[in-house]
Amino acid sequence: MFPMERRTPSEAVRVSYNAIAGGSLERLSALSDGIFAVAMTLLVLDVKPPEAPEVHNGPQLAVALVHLAPRVLMFAMSFLTLGIFWTGQQTQLTHLARGDRNLGWLHLVFLFAVSMMPFSTMLLAQFIALRPALGVYWANILALGVMLFVSWRYAMRAQLVKPEVPHAARCAIERRIVAAQLLYAVGALLSFIHPYFSIGFIIALQLYFAIAPRWPGKSAGAA
Amino acid sequence: MFPMERRTPSEAVRVSYNAIAGGSLERLSALSDGIFAVAMTLLVLDVKPPEAPEVHNGPQLAVALVHLAPRVLMFAMSFLTLGIFWTGQQTQLTHLARGDRNLGWLHLVFLFAVSMMPFSTMLLAQFIALRPALGVYWANILALGVMLFVSWRYAMRAQLVKPEVPHAARCAIERRIVAAQLLYAVGALLSFIHPYFSIGFIIALQLYFAIAPRWPGKSAGAA
Amino acid sequence: MFPMERRTPSEAVRVSYNAIAGGSLERLSALSDGIFAVAMTLLVLDVKPPEAPEVHNGPQLAVALVHLAPRVLMFAMSFLTLGIFWTGQQTQLTHLARGDRNLGWLHLVFLFAVSMMPFSTMLLAQFIALRPALGVYWANILALGVMLFVSWRYAMRAQLVKPEVPHAARCAIERRIVAAQLLYAVGALLSFIHPYFSIGFIIALQLYFAIAPRWPGKSAGAA
Amino acid sequence: MFPMERRTPSEAVRVSYNAIAGGSLERLSALSDGIFAVAMTLLVLDVKPPEAPEVHNGPQLAVALVHLAPRVLMFAMSFLTLGIFWTGQQTQLTHLARGDRNLGWLHLVFLFAVSMMPFSTMLLAQFIALRPALGVYWANILALGVMLFVSWRYAMRAQLVKPEVPHAARCAIERRIVAAQLLYAVGALLSFIHPYFSIGFIIALQLYFAIAPRWPGKSAGAA
Repeated sequence: MFPMERRTPSEAVRVSYNAIAGGSLERLSALSDGIFAVAMTLLVLDVKPPEAPEVHNGPQLAVALVHLAPRVLMFAMSFLTLGIFWTGQQTQLTHLARGDRNLGWLHLVFLFAVSMMPFSTMLLAQFIALRPALGVYWANILALGVMLFVSWRYAMRAQLVKPEVPHAARCAIERRIVAAQLLYAVGALLSFIHPYFSIGFIIALQLYFAIAPRWPGKSAGAA
Repeated sequence: MFPMERRTPSEAVRVSYNAIAGGSLERLSALSDGIFAVAMTLLVLDVKPPEAPEVHNGPQLAVALVHLAPRVLMFAMSFLTLGIFWTGQQTQLTHLARGDRNLGWLHLVFLFAVSMMPFSTMLLAQFIALRPALGVYWANILALGVMLFVSWRYAMRAQLVKPEVPHAARCAIERRIVAAQLLYAVGALLSFIHPYFSIGFIIALQLYFAIAPRWPGKSAGAA
Repeated sequence: MFPMERRTPSEAVRVSYNAIAGGSLERLSALSDGIFAVAMTLLVLDVKPPEAPEVHNGPQLAVALVHLAPRVLMFAMSFLTLGIFWTGQQTQLTHLARGDRNLGWLHLVFLFAVSMMPFSTMLLAQFIALRPALGVYWANILALGVMLFVSWRYAMRAQLVKPEVPHAARCAIERRIVAAQLLYAVGALLSFIHPYFSIGFIIALQLYFAIAPRWPGKSAGAA
Repeated sequence: MFPMERRTPSEAVRVSYNAIAGGSLERLSALSDGIFAVAMTLLVLDVKPPEAPEVHNGPQLAVALVHLAPRVLMFAMSFLTLGIFWTGQQTQLTHLARGDRNLGWLHLVFLFAVSMMPFSTMLLAQFIALRPALGVYWANILALGVMLFVSWRYAMRAQLVKPEVPHAARCAIERRIVAAQLLYAVGALLSFIHPYFSIGFIIALQLYFAIAPRWPGKSAGAA
């Protein structure tokens, strides 16, 4: 966490700001948790209760609530998405021994994509049958995956990963991102048949990632 | 926190992402605190000050503020509810030695229910006399309780609980959730007499949980 | 943090949930920081930029911005208030060796008052010349002070304070709260002359608390 | 973190609240991360999806999304700005051995400027061609820089910096702030030619700070 310690005073005649800036994994984790928390909570806040003048009794309210159900489902899907990427980022950061300024910036770009998620979700909820809305949503997921992949690759190249992490674990993290993104891409392509296919496929995919069932006859390592 | 250390390199020929993902209790606590903080603060933000054109002098403003009182009470009730479940989740997590990916997902579902709380509260504040609004509110509390119960059961089965936690403490946590949810269910059923009975009962219940008085002649263990 | 360790298994035949719940100072601090952060940021978000149709050129925009100045000042004042109470709460918590369930609930009530601050501020900004608006604002500050005082008293009585904290420091924390609240009460009473006196006095007070100048000829201990 | 330990009981006949208040760097970091997280996420939330009645098919939605692009760019710029200052603040705090009350208040003023950023950004997005909007935006960046500079100077004078931090690193932090602010001032002055020049220059500047390329033939220390 404190790179200065490895220099002798004579070496450090002129120190670059960039060499000493932004290496705290704790602060990066805390900022990430904050941004995820705000994005996740605001997502659901967009589900507004029905207007009072249109509802006069219990059955009318029940009907209005049923009409809200697809919107709630859409937000549940985005909560799930953010949960998946929160787990993914956390997995990476807990495997790192230290951070540096570049890693911090790669994760800030990742967090920018996180903070775009409420917008993409609202867009998809409003235009669920239109392909550009789905395109934006998929592009957002793609950006999240790409940034996680790039930051992990960077962490390995810059030797930020804890030395005791075995090669197999390093590969597992990479493999998971690539596999997931390939499947999301398939989901996005399904929108050329119909956007509903696409959304159904993506929801199924995310439930699979969250629940992570173990198929009989397959080893745990294959999931 | 770092499961890799318990494997020899030869064992880990192919490592599952799911085996190494998402086990950080610190990150889970931080995300939880963030989501609770946003949900609790936004709850109260929905209490809007009266509109300027309708209020011209002090007494008019005082009257407008008195009319806001039931709304403030409703939000105080939800703040209380979230406080109770925040305490409950914290109690569980401080008794765990470590987390894993499944526990993380059980808590993410719990946090989804937390993030739904502002919606349920606004709905109830708007339609306080209609039974479906109370039904949604109660279902939200039920979901919070069920997820806490399930995650605690999972933690015990997966041996995530600190070994020094005695059996009696494990039971106390479980017993509390079940007892509370039974009482909430009674509260929900009271709405078949009148929703106001139901709300009054739930508020009394939550004040009881928060204040936790000790009855004379009963041991502390009985509360 | 883990009260179970001090019991032998035979003692703990039946353990009360309340005896083991909610004692984590770390979680309480994190929740508090989250609620303060949301309340402080949302305060300023209420300062809306002027509407586009009413502004056509630079000078018009400059005039519109000058008209926003009192609103910005009002929010700066509330940011200051929350900063003062954030510092106060932090000072208490860093002097505690451990927490318990009751302390947690006293702080949750404190945090409820924190989350009411954006409402009180918006109310005062909208009705700056009306006494009930100032009354609500002052009641909010009073609630913050009372809860800090009560929680500190509780912490001392329940022996949660670190044993090495000298008596003089314990008194300093108490004295500060009482002195500040007496001055705020004077500020509130000034509103019977005119609300502007009151607001001016409170702003001056808070700048004094934040800047904490040392008067020549007085010891540092007298502030 | 606990200044009392360095006093003998006899010395501390009367302890000043200000001497023991607000020295926790952990709490300051946590509050900062929270405020940055909320400000960063809310920035992007202002990008509203197009209205449903105006959009009937995919191509219309695509056009509406293209029209949103400059707004998204503007918010990306502010996310970048906040990212730069978050990195800057973090760099300072990780070099400190301890905090005190004054440092806390300098950072609270810094955080006030952080929380003003969504307002400045919305203002600039709405009046991108008007000089006062750019003036407010630049003043906000200036305030962030000034507060970072002042708090670092204070930390050095009050000997809060970790003793092992070499002189060169202390200078690097200062130099960076001054250089950046001079360049931002140049950017602001460019608005007298045209606001677009100014915005283009500032965006280029911030990408430079974030990416931090190493020019061939220059040492890392020169950046």
